[in-house]
Amino acid sequence: MHQDYMLPPGEPARLRERSTLPTPEDLRKRQGRRLLADLQPGLNELQELMYANRKHALLIVLQGVDTSGKDGAIKHVIRAFNPQGCRITSFKAPTSVELAHDYLWRVHQVVPRKGMVGIFNRSHYEDVLIVRVENLVPPEVWEKRYEHINAFEKLLADNGTIILKFCLHISHDEQHKRLSKRLADPTSHWKFDIADVTARNKWDEYVDAYEAALERCNTPYAPWYIIPADKKWYRNLVISRILKDRLQELEMDWPPLNEAWRGITID
Amino acid sequence: MHQDYMLPPGEPARLRERSTLPTPEDLRKRQGRRLLADLQPGLNELQELMYANRKHALLIVLQGVDTSGKDGAIKHVIRAFNPQGCRITSFKAPTSVELAHDYLWRVHQVVPRKGMVGIFNRSHYEDVLIVRVENLVPPEVWEKRYEHINAFEKLLADNGTIILKFCLHISHDEQHKRLSKRLADPTSHWKFDIADVTARNKWDEYVDAYEAALERCNTPYAPWYIIPADKKWYRNLVISRILKDRLQELEMDWPPLNEAWRGITID
Repeated sequence: MHQDYMLPPGEPARLRERSTLPTPEDLRKRQGRRLLADLQPGLNELQELMYANRKHALLIVLQGVDTSGKDGAIKHVIRAFNPQGCRITSFKAPTSVELAHDYLWRVHQVVPRKGMVGIFNRSHYEDVLIVRVENLVPPEVWEKRYEHINAFEKLLADNGTIILKFCLHISHDEQHKRLSKRLADPTSHWKFDIADVTARNKWDEYVDAYEAALERCNTPYAPWYIIPADKKWYRNLVISRILKDRLQELEMDWPPLNEAWRGITID
Repeated sequence: MHQDYMLPPGEPARLRERSTLPTPEDLRKRQGRRLLADLQPGLNELQELMYANRKHALLIVLQGVDTSGKDGAIKHVIRAFNPQGCRITSFKAPTSVELAHDYLWRVHQVVPRKGMVGIFNRSHYEDVLIVRVENLVPPEVWEKRYEHINAFEKLLADNGTIILKFCLHISHDEQHKRLSKRLADPTSHWKFDIADVTARNKWDEYVDAYEAALERCNTPYAPWYIIPADKKWYRNLVISRILKDRLQELEMDWPPLNEAWRGITID
């Protein structure tokens, strides 16, 4: 699983040819949800171990077009974790103060410290996605960013941060279904934004921009995973498995009692 | 339930006379946990409504002696909420930069914005608790703080923040049990800190300091709830019920679709 959806560094992303559906095709929702439930206790312990040891941080980057399920993935996958060990940051349009700095400034401020899980709902990748598609800065400006991002992620990795980047991959048809639901369901009206429709009209340009980001910022220390995301339960299952696999590789143990405190008694 | 554990403004806290156990006494764990599970969907919807409306913020302050269950309460109560709508802040010993400012400076930076739930694991109340008991500043300095805190909380409340302060109330015996468990269980060794034993030796001084904070900073806009916390399931149940009662009072509805977008279709 860990390897199945990892984009090998150097390889093309070819998003248009990739399935957005579960494999094997006969895996059913009920079965998938049971597999996910089975993963939760182990994931919880691994996160607690990381929190207790304070040697590594985990940075989870979630990217994907509107309605691709970034919010849902956070809600369901992160449920396994102790919320005190997690910090979620949603990157919206930058403020005037943020725009007066380089684009990594606001990101650097919220990277997870050792022991913590940082979850980015959108990220510095927007600065080579929407910024590129919408021409918010000239090409000679965004063109340099792929290199900046690789250097930035290297800095974090060298300081003990495990970086996992998930691109939630949905089909054009599935997005249609999800946007239409937001328009039809009064409890979802608040989630609807006309900007999502505007972006949908540039679907192909976004695919191109995503492919560039996936290919040019894909390193052994900060790999991309392309997650088939038309089925929410499968998306959650795949992400959970990858998290578990990667955290297990750290081979963590519970920290021992401070030597100085051995034999102490409580009055 | 909402009223049962609220300390009425102006009344003495009398912690030593208050039970740390469930009422009614014949309420059993299994039953309590079922009641808690029943509350979760409603709580989840109320939080989503607050997030969608962006008119109010909710600030939950958790205080209590070591092992009183602040971490556990966050883990279990907050499980009902969408993690993206919550931000948890643990207040540790202040850094040198924080100490160079007034004690509310670091707190103000992390109060929840409208739509969000902010959860404080310890808080500005430490500045009239440990600071007072350990004489970290002279009495004439901490003495002024009760008034500062009331004014600060008024500012937040006037800006639409619902403030709920929970004092987790455990017995001296129960703390003994919990600290001993940390010493005995290798998976809990990392949670043990000798400072907890030092503080336990000043139990009575802490009770006095807590009573002063509870009585002097207890206002209609930021009331204290004293939660019987010897039984974890009961603590979680009581806090969840209070949250639900208070959020329901806001009588929130789903925001309607922007008028300008009515009749739009997705291509």
